[in-house]
Amino acid sequence: MAMMKASLLLAFFLLSAGTLARQQRQNWCQINRINALEACGNIQAEAGVTEFWEPDNQLFYCSGVEFIRHRIQPDGLLLPSYVNTPHLAFTEEGKGVLGVVLPGCPETYESSSKQQFSDLSQRRGPRIQDRHQNVQNFNPGDVVAIPAGAAHWIYNDGNTELVVVVFFDTHNNANQLDANRRRFYLAGNPHAHSEQQQGQSQQCHLHPEPYSGNIFNGFDVEFLQEAFNVDRETAEKLQGQRDQRGHIVRVEQDLQIIRPTHSREEQEQEQEQERGRENGFEETVCSLKLKENIDNPAHIDFVNKQAGRISNLNNYKFPILRHLQLSVAKSELYRNAIQSPQWMLNAHNIVYVTHGNMRVQIVNNKGESVFNDELREGQVVVIPQNFAVIKKAGEQGARWVSFRTNDNAITENLVGRVSAIRSLPVDVVANAYQVSREDAQKLKYNQQQTSLFSASSSKGQG
Amino acid sequence: MAMMKASLLLAFFLLSAGTLARQQRQNWCQINRINALEACGNIQAEAGVTEFWEPDNQLFYCSGVEFIRHRIQPDGLLLPSYVNTPHLAFTEEGKGVLGVVLPGCPETYESSSKQQFSDLSQRRGPRIQDRHQNVQNFNPGDVVAIPAGAAHWIYNDGNTELVVVVFFDTHNNANQLDANRRRFYLAGNPHAHSEQQQGQSQQCHLHPEPYSGNIFNGFDVEFLQEAFNVDRETAEKLQGQRDQRGHIVRVEQDLQIIRPTHSREEQEQEQEQERGRENGFEETVCSLKLKENIDNPAHIDFVNKQAGRISNLNNYKFPILRHLQLSVAKSELYRNAIQSPQWMLNAHNIVYVTHGNMRVQIVNNKGESVFNDELREGQVVVIPQNFAVIKKAGEQGARWVSFRTNDNAITENLVGRVSAIRSLPVDVVANAYQVSREDAQKLKYNQQQTSLFSASSSKGQG
Amino acid sequence: MAMMKASLLLAFFLLSAGTLARQQRQNWCQINRINALEACGNIQAEAGVTEFWEPDNQLFYCSGVEFIRHRIQPDGLLLPSYVNTPHLAFTEEGKGVLGVVLPGCPETYESSSKQQFSDLSQRRGPRIQDRHQNVQNFNPGDVVAIPAGAAHWIYNDGNTELVVVVFFDTHNNANQLDANRRRFYLAGNPHAHSEQQQGQSQQCHLHPEPYSGNIFNGFDVEFLQEAFNVDRETAEKLQGQRDQRGHIVRVEQDLQIIRPTHSREEQEQEQEQERGRENGFEETVCSLKLKENIDNPAHIDFVNKQAGRISNLNNYKFPILRHLQLSVAKSELYRNAIQSPQWMLNAHNIVYVTHGNMRVQIVNNKGESVFNDELREGQVVVIPQNFAVIKKAGEQGARWVSFRTNDNAITENLVGRVSAIRSLPVDVVANAYQVSREDAQKLKYNQQQTSLFSASSSKGQG
Repeated sequence: MAMMKASLLLAFFLLSAGTLARQQRQNWCQINRINALEACGNIQAEAGVTEFWEPDNQLFYCSGVEFIRHRIQPDGLLLPSYVNTPHLAFTEEGKGVLGVVLPGCPETYESSSKQQFSDLSQRRGPRIQDRHQNVQNFNPGDVVAIPAGAAHWIYNDGNTELVVVVFFDTHNNANQLDANRRRFYLAGNPHAHSEQQQGQSQQCHLHPEPYSGNIFNGFDVEFLQEAFNVDRETAEKLQGQRDQRGHIVRVEQDLQIIRPTHSREEQEQEQEQERGRENGFEETVCSLKLKENIDNPAHIDFVNKQAGRISNLNNYKFPILRHLQLSVAKSELYRNAIQSPQWMLNAHNIVYVTHGNMRVQIVNNKGESVFNDELREGQVVVIPQNFAVIKKAGEQGARWVSFRTNDNAITENLVGRVSAIRSLPVDVVANAYQVSREDAQKLKYNQQQTSLFSASSSKGQG
Repeated sequence: MAMMKASLLLAFFLLSAGTLARQQRQNWCQINRINALEACGNIQAEAGVTEFWEPDNQLFYCSGVEFIRHRIQPDGLLLPSYVNTPHLAFTEEGKGVLGVVLPGCPETYESSSKQQFSDLSQRRGPRIQDRHQNVQNFNPGDVVAIPAGAAHWIYNDGNTELVVVVFFDTHNNANQLDANRRRFYLAGNPHAHSEQQQGQSQQCHLHPEPYSGNIFNGFDVEFLQEAFNVDRETAEKLQGQRDQRGHIVRVEQDLQIIRPTHSREEQEQEQEQERGRENGFEETVCSLKLKENIDNPAHIDFVNKQAGRISNLNNYKFPILRHLQLSVAKSELYRNAIQSPQWMLNAHNIVYVTHGNMRVQIVNNKGESVFNDELREGQVVVIPQNFAVIKKAGEQGARWVSFRTNDNAITENLVGRVSAIRSLPVDVVANAYQVSREDAQKLKYNQQQTSLFSASSSKGQG
Repeated sequence: MAMMKASLLLAFFLLSAGTLARQQRQNWCQINRINALEACGNIQAEAGVTEFWEPDNQLFYCSGVEFIRHRIQPDGLLLPSYVNTPHLAFTEEGKGVLGVVLPGCPETYESSSKQQFSDLSQRRGPRIQDRHQNVQNFNPGDVVAIPAGAAHWIYNDGNTELVVVVFFDTHNNANQLDANRRRFYLAGNPHAHSEQQQGQSQQCHLHPEPYSGNIFNGFDVEFLQEAFNVDRETAEKLQGQRDQRGHIVRVEQDLQIIRPTHSREEQEQEQEQERGRENGFEETVCSLKLKENIDNPAHIDFVNKQAGRISNLNNYKFPILRHLQLSVAKSELYRNAIQSPQWMLNAHNIVYVTHGNMRVQIVNNKGESVFNDELREGQVVVIPQNFAVIKKAGEQGARWVSFRTNDNAITENLVGRVSAIRSLPVDVVANAYQVSREDAQKLKYNQQQTSLFSASSSKGQG
């Protein structure tokens, strides 16, 4: 019976697939309702937890984005892994060390410089000679850009929880697989420890990360033994089948790595930036700067002492973004201040609130309000390309990070000193809105601030 | 019952989605029949009408293109709006003024130069100081390139109807939403006036533009009041809820805008073009030339006094096309002349006949004639990438505009002075077609004209 | 009844299309099982046969690739045709001549130089003057890059069968049609001779090439007569309706073409390469080098006298690949040698074994072995982007060609002199795999070879 139905169905499909596919595509991303999303599930591990925002959410799916948050305890190590999409990691709290493995690049960090290792070597017996690729210190405000397929690991070397939010772009050209985020671990037994906690206010409909495992597990031990030229026991360790720690493991002693000193890091970064400007991606992949701090005052695009500020990292300021086709901004609105109603011309915009709350309205092409709600700390909302949005901070003000699916996302404000309304001739304004020329001038010029409007300024009139 | 069926269905889907999706994709764009399309519906407004070609047409859908035509009456203003796809607008008849709002670009047109405003100021009382972004005069043959998400408006300042045809590329990389064209109005009440006229010879199956509205309508008035710093009544005007004029409104007095004089415009354009060649898109978005006249003799690619002519705007001649990944050509065939059978290597080709008629045959990869009909004035046909086509003008000759989904669309002619047949060794021709070497030479060399063949030349032989 | 069911279904779809489309997309490329594919069908012709690998295979479909093999007998001519995808052709055996028709490029090969034609002219009566585009000699190891939509033909001028394998990338940006490979013939009657042979060990589920025909067949003879300015009989020959030879025809006498001499070819190619480096694609399409021999020792990337060798053609070595966004490698593993477990960051990898056999394991993101089998001569396997793979040659060693869906495909080895494990700090290794520092050092450093590991070296330990 089921078979019969299936075959009838199939016959129907073969006849009408054209129509159906068209219908589906026309309908499947008609966004009539946007929801603010909170973490809906998590995967626990020995030394931390990863929280997930609904991977099955229609809007995430339509815009091809995903969002997670790692909470790594002190001495926690997120095991090395790679993902089939480019992604941006933003350090919300704490400090750590990050390593990104870039194919074919030299292991430039060598343990020959004694001063860096001396303190550790005494504590733990004989000093081990080591050599590895460069690692990055990771501080609040740091944004790390990780290409698709590049393995990376994170270690919390601080005394407090390290909180990192990560934004994935599954529709990116760099992903030739389907639109599922897939994480390939190089170690451990990622799901050994996993439990979906029931304490969230929203519940994920699907398992938050059904797609990850340790790739060594799929190889025969004999092959690993031969390839690594080690004994069977060590080769079995690569597969981690008896590992119960999950994907974030506790390092029993301090992790001994060759760390960049502050001065060294800055110097390197300057050199890297120089080189990065000269050439294309492939030649300089080893010297590309993968990290930039968005709190660096040099990145402030706009500041209004009464209303707030906006910082921005695009392909000019952070050249690797050109290859990832992503960018990121950090914004703050003070108490009751408003951000100009606006739209983004060439990107989806994924907003994650880090502090406070704000009232947000999002409007689609039909002029319908598809989101009209408070957006609170920890919530995420997707503002699709071209959809109009207005934001008003609450009593505590609001701070948020915005991830964009374009390396040079362009925003058009509807009102303010630099805006669409000012671009229009006054007579176009008057006729479009059926107002007098005098009122048209008010619409164009009454709002004299730019982009962020202080609460007081608005009250001055009307 | 419906629920049960649905759940059975769903179960079936979860099992066989892979197969099904594959089947669908393999089938949904098998084009076995192409139709010439005429306007099938329209949306009326106070001072004009927009005509639509079936948005639901399978071929439009598969090739990701859409096509509309605005007919704007004298003193009609197409309200400011933006669309989620890049598009090209071609002025078929009449004259007008066009404004394209580019984010962050300066308002370079200022009303300080008295000579431009003096004539108007007397008629209408006190002269209003104004400042706005540059506007373009819009004449027959002008092609305007509008990036995705860029707001624009059109005003008919002539004495006759302004007819503008617009080509949209919904599959363009710049559109990150789905394949629906979505228009976001900045003013008015676009559907207030809309009626689908029943007088068309073809009827649209779907509502021609279900996706447009005034974005201000989705914001709370209080927010608009605060953002624009105006009183409630003025803020309500932004929403246009009581506006009954539709999307093309009548300007009661002449629209007072700072107009480019002819000499000013030319000078600017030269400067812009200079600058445009030096840098990338983002740096020069404010100075990029958005308009080019395809009737400019400099753009003629090919002319045959007996057969016709072809003009072409590609990324070299009109640099913004590089960013839109689109191009356009205008062709004319004289009475009974033939265009060489040909195919386009890297683009779909959307043909809109402006004058006369021609016989067109389009052939798919199976060697089947999928279109074989007269194509008349006002009709549109899509020639998919790689499909072969031949055109023969009727007794009145034919003129048409071709929009291409590549900024440097490449055509291969099958015969003529520069053609595939001439590229082949004579012995390849002889063996491929089973003809003698002498006949192979005739196939290669008998047609001595290039691309367009006059009727007389062909009659000389055979 | 069928109608009722259909309409119920449709109603269901209109309600739930969003969910369904999402489900499908989430599921349709979940690759849980990869199969080695052999030729499953073929199309016979007068002077050769084309063999097909299952075009309907899920993995081929998901990764957007297709694979065929032409076997052209001596004096066989593959009729001129073009395809809607870019493709790479690799000569496995034999020698031939290839012509690629590039639109608008001059016919630079002229029969004015007597020495090239003199020997032929006596045998076959009066010498024919001819002029055509350049042609390429085609030898074992040659890779030819053919852009989407570019017509081409192949002639076997040797004494043995010419075997050419061809890789198509249907998901390539250059293909704006759907994901079906479509071949448009310029001559003949491709299916006249076609029979699907039943002797294959695997059977195709679908007809291997349902999509090809002679485009002239879709035009009216009168139009062809007029366009080519020839008599009706000759015009009918273009359509080839009475042609029974199929898509590979026998040339009765030696094909008389103006051939590049060896020195001429080399000189041209050097010049072409020079020019190719200076400019963009469009300006130099006529001078772009379309052929490169992968067996040229200059292309060896890596050689290990005990283990094997790898040659590679990417966008730097073969500039046209930049425009095709494809690349190719040729590898050899000696008896019992192992290739480092590895993954490719930015490309699918399609492996075709030309000699010998090897054991291959492919691992997905869940750590599951999705392929674990012998791969023998003539078999093809797709290794999806980011999936991990290990290969071990059998007793006869193995040689294979790898086609990649990126013009600069990047591989990360898991172990060896340049590898992910060496990039990690020893303490990250120790903690990730729960081993001692000493064992971590063994994991990092025991394998001292690079990429390919000889059988003996591995046996030295463990």
